[in-house]
Amino acid sequence: MCAFEKKEKYNVAIAGVTGAVGETFLNILAERNFPINKLKPLASARSAGKKITYQGKEYEVEELGHDSFEDVDIALFSAGGGRSLEFAPSAAKAGAVVIDNSSAYRMDDDVPLVVPEVNPDDAFKHKGIIANPNCTTIIMVVALKPLYDFSKIERVVVSSYQSASGAGAQGMYELEEQAKAWAKGEKLNVENFQYQLLFNVIPHVDKFMENGYTKEEMKMYNETKKIIGDNNVLVSATCVRVPVLTAHSESIFVETKDKISVEKAKELFSNAKGLQVMDNPEKNEYPIPLLAAGKDDCYVGRIREDISCENALSFWVCGDQLRKGAALNAIQIAELLIK
Amino acid sequence: MCAFEKKEKYNVAIAGVTGAVGETFLNILAERNFPINKLKPLASARSAGKKITYQGKEYEVEELGHDSFEDVDIALFSAGGGRSLEFAPSAAKAGAVVIDNSSAYRMDDDVPLVVPEVNPDDAFKHKGIIANPNCTTIIMVVALKPLYDFSKIERVVVSSYQSASGAGAQGMYELEEQAKAWAKGEKLNVENFQYQLLFNVIPHVDKFMENGYTKEEMKMYNETKKIIGDNNVLVSATCVRVPVLTAHSESIFVETKDKISVEKAKELFSNAKGLQVMDNPEKNEYPIPLLAAGKDDCYVGRIREDISCENALSFWVCGDQLRKGAALNAIQIAELLIK
Repeated sequence: MCAFEKKEKYNVAIAGVTGAVGETFLNILAERNFPINKLKPLASARSAGKKITYQGKEYEVEELGHDSFEDVDIALFSAGGGRSLEFAPSAAKAGAVVIDNSSAYRMDDDVPLVVPEVNPDDAFKHKGIIANPNCTTIIMVVALKPLYDFSKIERVVVSSYQSASGAGAQGMYELEEQAKAWAKGEKLNVENFQYQLLFNVIPHVDKFMENGYTKEEMKMYNETKKIIGDNNVLVSATCVRVPVLTAHSESIFVETKDKISVEKAKELFSNAKGLQVMDNPEKNEYPIPLLAAGKDDCYVGRIREDISCENALSFWVCGDQLRKGAALNAIQIAELLIK
Repeated sequence: MCAFEKKEKYNVAIAGVTGAVGETFLNILAERNFPINKLKPLASARSAGKKITYQGKEYEVEELGHDSFEDVDIALFSAGGGRSLEFAPSAAKAGAVVIDNSSAYRMDDDVPLVVPEVNPDDAFKHKGIIANPNCTTIIMVVALKPLYDFSKIERVVVSSYQSASGAGAQGMYELEEQAKAWAKGEKLNVENFQYQLLFNVIPHVDKFMENGYTKEEMKMYNETKKIIGDNNVLVSATCVRVPVLTAHSESIFVETKDKISVEKAKELFSNAKGLQVMDNPEKNEYPIPLLAAGKDDCYVGRIREDISCENALSFWVCGDQLRKGAALNAIQIAELLIK
């Protein structure tokens, strides 16, 4: 169990503060009025010296180093897996609790993997590092958990529609620049994705593994088991990048042990934290990424009894992967600790 | 059985010649050098009088009417279900064989529903009208059939990524105009889709049904059974519009009676007509809509043994829904008849 000293205000470091998630960390800390004593914005040498603003006050970004964490209570990391592996142990050793947004520690037995709506108690089992799950996984498990609590889940088949900013601020920028170039009849620049993303979809998020799945797809398989705490929950994912700026969408088929009616599913979803039911097809009301972007909650709709299987539901979820899929979830973990 | 008189050349009418599929009919008839004696371009009153060009010759579009089909051998219809219901019987009565691209007759017991690679023999059972299946269904069954022939299929879970031109030429135009308006910082016009399609995805194609599925999703359920000729093939679909101009993509999970290895699946796909295997992940080779657009074949990749189920495969298919999903398939049916 963690020995986390309760204070009135906390010293908070943000590693990777200049990235898409880093920026969202700042917005959400301010929105939620997180009790910050001292803010320490950190980034790689390339970004050190840059200025960021938090609650009207300007801060200079410092270079992330092994000695960055003296007096830090909470270190929010979103600087890539390599930097987490290198610097998170130093932060933990200096006495900070690291909440790490990378995949580096997620499957480590000593590191809890936490979605506050799903497994809040796990947060308190940390040994200095808590992992924030993969964004696509977080958005899915927020919806799966209320179903799981009603009836065990046997299998999930999910296809994702992942936005450009899932690949960082530069991914979103590339998509915007492609649209501008296309409108002017100019050549489209392709750097962050394997192919042009504008007017295209790409079934390739993160690296390919030996079994033909991508790392992103295997994260959904492995992390879901760990977060829900049941190795019998099997997830087959196909992860696809789509030309959307922010917010991921997922088409989810879930086979349950017992039958769950649509009415029951809506009731379970409605009572779940972090989830909004948006399901009035006759009024064209269902989740879309344009509406989910910038929101804290995930949205679920298109809920129907599956037509191919007796005990199964199909539904559609959208969530802002920079917020609930990353920064918000990490800050909610921090809020659990200081509560 | 049809009594179709073989000739050297045929009189061919195209109803709906000014639409997205109509234009593709003209391109494909020319590409394949279809033996045309007399071409009769037809459309609604609104488009009558317009000029179209076929193989360098200009034609004036005539208004579609009950008396349009005298001397016509083959009538290709893509003018919407209402016009098919109104005029296809007149065409058949006048002696033409109608190949109808709308959904009007697809589930009619007297009307064969044909994908030439899957159930060519059904084409000859017509009574004047042959139905061309739904575009998303065609692209899927071309890939399912070789698997089905090896091992019966028990269940399919499919999520689609459908392009704007699936809603007609005006859908594609709307997406293009949205991109141009966005680049100029102007207001985006939304008419053909429920919401802005640029930088968005919309889980809503065709109308909603009582059971929560859309008509498009139910077409995939019902038409697949009829085309494959097996009511035990159950398809659960989620159909989603994505900001792609042309070519539909589909993430397909298929549970089979017997196990099919990845190697076997690749062999079966490779030997199938109308299908190209594109599956070298290590070289970033997998189907994408940008590459499938304008092609006759459908492309299959991301083939893997499903991780959630013993006898199941997951894969990804792309196909040009104006070509194989509509005009090409209809013309291939005509080619079966005249062969």
